[in-house]
Amino acid sequence: MGQNLANKILASHLVEGKLIPGQPIAIKIDHTLLQDATGTMAMLEFIATEVPRVKVDLAAQYVDHNLLQTDNKNADDHAFLASCAQKFGIYLSKPGNGVSHQVQLERFGVPGTTLLGADSHTPTAAGLGQLAIGAGGLDVALAMAGHPFHLTCPRIWGIRLTGALRPWVSGKDVILEMLRRHSVKGGVGRIIEYYGPGVATLSATDRATIGNMGAELGATTTIFPSDQRTREFLEAQGRGECWRELAADPDATYDDHDEIDLSQVEPLIACPSSPDNVVRVAEIEGLKVDQVIVGSSVNSSFRDLMTVCRILEGRRIAPGLSFHINPGSRQVLENVVDKGGLMMLLLAGAQVHQPGCLGCIGMGQAPGTNQVSLRTFPRNFPGRSGTKEDRVYLCSPETAAAAGVFGVVTDPRKLGDLLTWPAVQNPERYLVDDSGIQAPPEEGSQVEIVTGPNIVPFPAFDALPDQLDLEVMIKVGDNISTDTIMPAGNKVLPFRSNIPAISTFVFEQVDPEFSERAKAKGDGAVVAGENYGQGSSREHAALAPRYLGIRAKFAKGFARIHRANLINFGILPLTFKNPGDYDRLNRGDRLRISGLREQVASGGVELTWQVASGGEVVTLLNASERERAELLAGGLLNKVREESHGR
Amino acid sequence: MGQNLANKILASHLVEGKLIPGQPIAIKIDHTLLQDATGTMAMLEFIATEVPRVKVDLAAQYVDHNLLQTDNKNADDHAFLASCAQKFGIYLSKPGNGVSHQVQLERFGVPGTTLLGADSHTPTAAGLGQLAIGAGGLDVALAMAGHPFHLTCPRIWGIRLTGALRPWVSGKDVILEMLRRHSVKGGVGRIIEYYGPGVATLSATDRATIGNMGAELGATTTIFPSDQRTREFLEAQGRGECWRELAADPDATYDDHDEIDLSQVEPLIACPSSPDNVVRVAEIEGLKVDQVIVGSSVNSSFRDLMTVCRILEGRRIAPGLSFHINPGSRQVLENVVDKGGLMMLLLAGAQVHQPGCLGCIGMGQAPGTNQVSLRTFPRNFPGRSGTKEDRVYLCSPETAAAAGVFGVVTDPRKLGDLLTWPAVQNPERYLVDDSGIQAPPEEGSQVEIVTGPNIVPFPAFDALPDQLDLEVMIKVGDNISTDTIMPAGNKVLPFRSNIPAISTFVFEQVDPEFSERAKAKGDGAVVAGENYGQGSSREHAALAPRYLGIRAKFAKGFARIHRANLINFGILPLTFKNPGDYDRLNRGDRLRISGLREQVASGGVELTWQVASGGEVVTLLNASERERAELLAGGLLNKVREESHGR
Repeated sequence: MGQNLANKILASHLVEGKLIPGQPIAIKIDHTLLQDATGTMAMLEFIATEVPRVKVDLAAQYVDHNLLQTDNKNADDHAFLASCAQKFGIYLSKPGNGVSHQVQLERFGVPGTTLLGADSHTPTAAGLGQLAIGAGGLDVALAMAGHPFHLTCPRIWGIRLTGALRPWVSGKDVILEMLRRHSVKGGVGRIIEYYGPGVATLSATDRATIGNMGAELGATTTIFPSDQRTREFLEAQGRGECWRELAADPDATYDDHDEIDLSQVEPLIACPSSPDNVVRVAEIEGLKVDQVIVGSSVNSSFRDLMTVCRILEGRRIAPGLSFHINPGSRQVLENVVDKGGLMMLLLAGAQVHQPGCLGCIGMGQAPGTNQVSLRTFPRNFPGRSGTKEDRVYLCSPETAAAAGVFGVVTDPRKLGDLLTWPAVQNPERYLVDDSGIQAPPEEGSQVEIVTGPNIVPFPAFDALPDQLDLEVMIKVGDNISTDTIMPAGNKVLPFRSNIPAISTFVFEQVDPEFSERAKAKGDGAVVAGENYGQGSSREHAALAPRYLGIRAKFAKGFARIHRANLINFGILPLTFKNPGDYDRLNRGDRLRISGLREQVASGGVELTWQVASGGEVVTLLNASERERAELLAGGLLNKVREESHGR
Repeated sequence: MGQNLANKILASHLVEGKLIPGQPIAIKIDHTLLQDATGTMAMLEFIATEVPRVKVDLAAQYVDHNLLQTDNKNADDHAFLASCAQKFGIYLSKPGNGVSHQVQLERFGVPGTTLLGADSHTPTAAGLGQLAIGAGGLDVALAMAGHPFHLTCPRIWGIRLTGALRPWVSGKDVILEMLRRHSVKGGVGRIIEYYGPGVATLSATDRATIGNMGAELGATTTIFPSDQRTREFLEAQGRGECWRELAADPDATYDDHDEIDLSQVEPLIACPSSPDNVVRVAEIEGLKVDQVIVGSSVNSSFRDLMTVCRILEGRRIAPGLSFHINPGSRQVLENVVDKGGLMMLLLAGAQVHQPGCLGCIGMGQAPGTNQVSLRTFPRNFPGRSGTKEDRVYLCSPETAAAAGVFGVVTDPRKLGDLLTWPAVQNPERYLVDDSGIQAPPEEGSQVEIVTGPNIVPFPAFDALPDQLDLEVMIKVGDNISTDTIMPAGNKVLPFRSNIPAISTFVFEQVDPEFSERAKAKGDGAVVAGENYGQGSSREHAALAPRYLGIRAKFAKGFARIHRANLINFGILPLTFKNPGDYDRLNRGDRLRISGLREQVASGGVELTWQVASGGEVVTLLNASERERAELLAGGLLNKVREESHGR
């Protein structure tokens, strides 16, 4: 029986466990990725491991999130990260050099290797056939220190692609079709593997778009074969030597199945405020648009931007609409400039920004009250744009450009009345400029770390107590994202290296008194619905609640990265044995348990809590032996410290 | 006896008074300028006049300050301004189209006319021979409504220019030389008029640089002749028909005199934290630089940026330094792109931002703690960068580029070892693109004004009471800028249309409890030293303290625009008869006066206050009849309302 590609790469990196879905495994990590919002804390965690230099083949630190710099904090953090990169043997991609995912694709990704990144969109590297997984910062810090990455062996979900996309339809529409079919929970516990004759019709950057937003399905990651299109991209980057052919065996099998005929994919759009709220663009045609943004984390490649340039060439942005371009990287911008595209954008009235995440993480570009914003971004969770009750739609660059031209939501195929489909291809040879990347010295031990006043030491957490008496501090619904638990944006992101300060913003959008109440009352719990903690990988969504005294989260289900982050910081991720118990619990209820350590240590799955107002709630702790040890220690960092003291 | 140019223009616009220095006069205003930070409030004030359409020849509203948009507020304000522009017959320069001063120079300025702008750097238009004065928003709103502008007739200060600048020296060094000689108070009560054979050696944009920073000398404005260089610039803009020749009579006389031999001007730099803290660049050579920014309000023209492009061409920014370019306008950026300059910047590793004020008004680009930042901006007041205890230096583009290449402060003439002085000239014909400017319709009365939740109605202020019992709420020193009184930056600027909210930030940098204390205690006073209220024209530095209950400011001296703003909002601007009384007064002291209305109304100059702790303080109210009427009414808007009700 033939092997699929995902399992081939997992097998070649397996260091613990067996490739049986649902079983704990550990894999060797070849590359790591940090960005500045998750990176300051991850770097503090790496420092805590006392490993003098990173032990992976390639570690990169990107500065792409906190580019606004409205006070000293961001610049201080960047100086800290730059000094750490020099000291520990890490490549630094400087502010303005671009979004981590695009730069990783261009300059570092290698087919068949593994990448662990402290960013949920790390699977963008799927576009090169790299097995790229998003994780919490602590997991990445430990990978940098040479530890394998522990995860639950995923199911492999084969998506057979046939046919070819029609004009005015692109990769974004493929992944929106996946979200339309399968929702933001559809990929949980799975690696999505695309195969079949349709794959060869997609460029590396279209594949990267599809890989990036696999995160929106909750998938562990996404993988594409490494074929002639991959080679083409790597050779265009002057990195042809990294290429090798990789594909599933012809008779490979998959745990789950679906099929997409690319020729049937229509222009799609995700409506507010979830990436799976997808309809055909044609269904909402005519809606007045106030703002359009192309670029950032996804759809910021040369093909994407140059397609927009060609559409806008010789035209004017509709009046009353602002049109923004966020290039994915300095390289993308330079290639667009080189081909004359920038002038097309400027003369059309577009605003062109420096490469970076920008509005995609709420760092500027917030729409006005009641304004409709069309974005090529991967996410439109409520308030992520920076504006409360925002109206953010997600779409392809083609659909975005059509709105720019017509001023209202328009099926991009109607652009065919104005111009021939430009069919932009990525360059055969990119203009390559690594001026924004700083390589580390061979020897960095003498480098001094620059620590500004915003870098606050990691808080100390106690071990899991034997008895817990918890108050329910908040009750929330289904599909709560980490943006709701721990907001981003310019007000909050600068505190990512300062847990006491950032913890004051936990659940701020839905319950402004949460942090004060939780901190005052001591040990607490959160009650939540399905797919709790979806979205961004930010470990601060676990770390900051832990700092406020949250010891357990009771949910109908957890998103993968957030569940791992909870364990990493010693919070019990518990599901209801009887999902109906969700309805019984409310804010202010008290739950008690004793003999907890023994039950966790002995592998007990059922934990029974006494509810103060009467009755019991039975919860499930589905955790591996390793995870239980971490929970008992009060978190992974405590466990690692215990082990090093024990030696 | 021949006339100087300043008096010719004043005379041709005089509607009240005589051109005798120190006497109150009023002049007709031809053009007005608003930007978005001052413009929301000014527009509310214009609406309060109930005039249906602006009555000046040309009114322009620029959106250049609040471009970060970290929540709904900025976008809401922009939508408000855009709708007002359409309704009231105002040209709108949209976000990303550039800094007001640069765009005004390019597209609207006309030699020999008057411009009133709600921005202290309005005198940039001096580069075209336009008499351009910065004022509070209310003054500009009234000018838009057809009222003349009232001011104290200034002394005319003739600066005779001879010789020509040497290579690597430019307009910025000329104005830094003026600041070195005359300090930030040197221009108070004066119009600076440049004349003599050296003038013809300076381009319109170098003259604009000198005019812009005349504001830093405290001058009412600056004026240059309109000559062949002016014609050259206007023709390059496709506006040759606006040109007319203007100059002082050959035998003109001036009230004050100085002379600069341009060939003797050396590269200069203003050290932290005042624009007049000027030394020769050579004196601080070798200082390590962390950040360089070229552009924003001043030195953001084609010549300035292209000079930097040529210096960086084929070179790399020094490691460990970030180098930023803030183009003055979309037009500047397009012309730089057109000449290949953008690629030179990108390949050197520079970060190129959208056109706008950006870091110049603390909207991003804040340096890190203890970092040295070299900027071509006009101001380096403490904390204006967004970082407390910042280390900001002001210099020419040439000096900025030299720091970029060498990584340390370097006399730009040392660049001569690497390349020939590029001697960049402005284009003979600019690429002109007005896609970012929206002309108003002929008839706008049906346009509906878009008012977001951040637009809060103007607060009601009472008339001047007959008795005052004031507590000194704060005592500050000399040269306190409006940045200290009412900070800007991303945290504060979005509240410019919301007085209750913005008032909580008054004096925040120097006394975080000020606003709460002042509001709680009722009627209060501020005690200050010389040149109080220098810098930005922001009327919020008067309006917000008034909202907090400040009824009088006791100072050794006032900056012109701030004094006018105090009167506009009904705060008594009082100077000490005996400057030694400054030392006697302290926070918490109480001062009482009675019969105040009668004294103010009758033209009494001396106001005597009883100090609760014993003794008297005699203060001077040097105010015109018109100003006294405004003070009695509780502010200019109250007076205008009284007049219209009285009719």
